[in-house]
Amino acid sequence: MEKEFERLDDLQRNGLKIIQDRRLFCFGTDAVLLADFASVPTNGKVLDLCSGNGIVPLLLSQKSKASSIVGVELLPESYALAVRNAELNGLSERIRFVCGDLKNWAEFFTPHSFDHITCNPPYVKYESGITNEQDALAIARHEIHCTLEDVVAASAPLLQSGGKLTMVHRPQRLADLFYLLRTYRLEPKRFRLVYPSPSKAANMVLVEAALDGKVQVIAEPPLFLRQENGAYTEEVYQIYGGNIS
Amino acid sequence: MEKEFERLDDLQRNGLKIIQDRRLFCFGTDAVLLADFASVPTNGKVLDLCSGNGIVPLLLSQKSKASSIVGVELLPESYALAVRNAELNGLSERIRFVCGDLKNWAEFFTPHSFDHITCNPPYVKYESGITNEQDALAIARHEIHCTLEDVVAASAPLLQSGGKLTMVHRPQRLADLFYLLRTYRLEPKRFRLVYPSPSKAANMVLVEAALDGKVQVIAEPPLFLRQENGAYTEEVYQIYGGNIS
Repeated sequence: MEKEFERLDDLQRNGLKIIQDRRLFCFGTDAVLLADFASVPTNGKVLDLCSGNGIVPLLLSQKSKASSIVGVELLPESYALAVRNAELNGLSERIRFVCGDLKNWAEFFTPHSFDHITCNPPYVKYESGITNEQDALAIARHEIHCTLEDVVAASAPLLQSGGKLTMVHRPQRLADLFYLLRTYRLEPKRFRLVYPSPSKAANMVLVEAALDGKVQVIAEPPLFLRQENGAYTEEVYQIYGGNIS
Repeated sequence: MEKEFERLDDLQRNGLKIIQDRRLFCFGTDAVLLADFASVPTNGKVLDLCSGNGIVPLLLSQKSKASSIVGVELLPESYALAVRNAELNGLSERIRFVCGDLKNWAEFFTPHSFDHITCNPPYVKYESGITNEQDALAIARHEIHCTLEDVVAASAPLLQSGGKLTMVHRPQRLADLFYLLRTYRLEPKRFRLVYPSPSKAANMVLVEAALDGKVQVIAEPPLFLRQENGAYTEEVYQIYGGNIS
């Protein structure tokens, strides 16, 4: 069943499994935290941008009562894996994937057709020459084909009024993120800083914005990945379904 | 020496003392944390906006090697108290105060004449009718005479290139703050969320921005005021000079 560079992981949620390809981008803690943080409405229509191998739609299918989840992925190899992952879990009715560039969203979707959008985008500003532009891992990590503004600019017209965009990013980009969100009428409503441990600077931030939302953002309690002694915190164990290695 | 509504507090720093007037705004934890967070350059020229009774200039005079500190305060009663506080501590050579509206900064100061600006502004958006506009406490707490944008708009032209603005505010306004800072070329460089305890949402945020700074902001380790058992944390004791009640 698995191919040479593939591995099969158990997601610790009702038997949910995922095939990953070591040559492509394998999901990290950020995707798991994003799915946990996202507050997806019951019967909502959900869109996941930069889906990769489909990890966020898979996790959202278990934690939410979303009626449908659509993932968009640029790389054909990752898209093919995402489709197989939906099939593997018997979720092809509820989760579907589109292979394409989110900047061309109008080719795939009707405006205002989603209640909630999630995205775990490439984090690193692209500086020409420092990466191999053809490399799948570089594309997943650097803003080669998709910038933060591309994500925000595509999300705003695809959401219904009051609809939400939930993202994970690096705190270093939080000013960029807040600035762009407001520029596109997506008002930040709540955010949570993720710290490696209580004595360290944050290394991730989770943000929820609402289209045409009221101006007021809540800084939720801190999320610590590990205690000072190096052990995972109780909350992280719970988010991972009791099993993290 | 003290008048009827006044009290004299020891600031626990080399005998530093402050007179406060119970009818006016008395400083809170936010002012102390702001002074602690501010990274004032040696021999720097410092400006403190919304100075109140002068608490931030007094604290900065002890922790920094700033060559001069100027405070601006709108209310004549608070300004008079700030002047007395500088005299009381023998700091009138190093700290001076201006009574006026920061929006009229050009009447008092030369452009680009400061290395660092601090501000603990009114936090609450003003909605006409809900407060007594003449009340000194309302003016200190609500954006009646001074909005967040007024502070940022006055700071940018007063700073030298690379100069810094350090503020304390409520996290609910962090999107406003980041958006306005960037709009006025003051790029957020570091911020720190202050949580009442590790399990609670943040209730203060400390932000440093640099004029024409590079786009990248660091989310510093969390600051907790109290432990889960209600006791102040060690860091807060240290910031308060070992004595907090």
